[in-house]
Amino acid sequence: MSAIARLPQPPYYAVIFTSLRTEVEDGYGETGERMMALAAEQEGFLGVETAREGLGITVSYWRDLESIQKWRRQAEHAEAQRMGREKWYASYALRVAKVEYARDWVSEEH
Amino acid sequence: MSAIARLPQPPYYAVIFTSLRTEVEDGYGETGERMMALAAEQEGFLGVETAREGLGITVSYWRDLESIQKWRRQAEHAEAQRMGREKWYASYALRVAKVEYARDWVSEEH
Repeated sequence: MSAIARLPQPPYYAVIFTSLRTEVEDGYGETGERMMALAAEQEGFLGVETAREGLGITVSYWRDLESIQKWRRQAEHAEAQRMGREKWYASYALRVAKVEYARDWVSEEH
Repeated sequence: MSAIARLPQPPYYAVIFTSLRTEVEDGYGETGERMMALAAEQEGFLGVETAREGLGITVSYWRDLESIQKWRRQAEHAEAQRMGREKWYASYALRVAKVEYARDWVSEEH
């Protein structure tokens, strides 16, 4: 299970990737795990949060737009994006946003 | 199931609410549904996407920061937030971000 990302103080950037899947599994899970691990190695990566309940939402956090651009173009990731469009995704939306304000809360009881 | 939100061209704002639940159900589902319906009635609301897989991620989209502030202070919503901290959430993070770039994609095959 994905956890709540621990991030530095804003500003930083969020990439909100929302998707609906096809019924094709072929390599989806392995590639997803590989991309999560590979993203974490990239310069400027800050964290990631992901959940799927029919609709999938993955939010990755980055230091700046340049880091996002580089990750988008990283060769293995570009190939995974291509396979995603070919096989795994029926539709998706990608939104790049500058985080201006952030707040965390943890229960004292739980 | 939540769908991919259909949104206007950027800029607009995203509120990324990431949470971990307690084991307390007491009113959680009903209040969640009520808050989704109530949010949709607010001035400046553009859309919402939500998924929970252990970690819950809800991204709501708004025209501007003023709309977000008003929604945050809306009386029934403020009460739901209070109950959330008292009963339903073990921890959460809230991030407010300005969407600068967006792209949609739909498969031609599916």
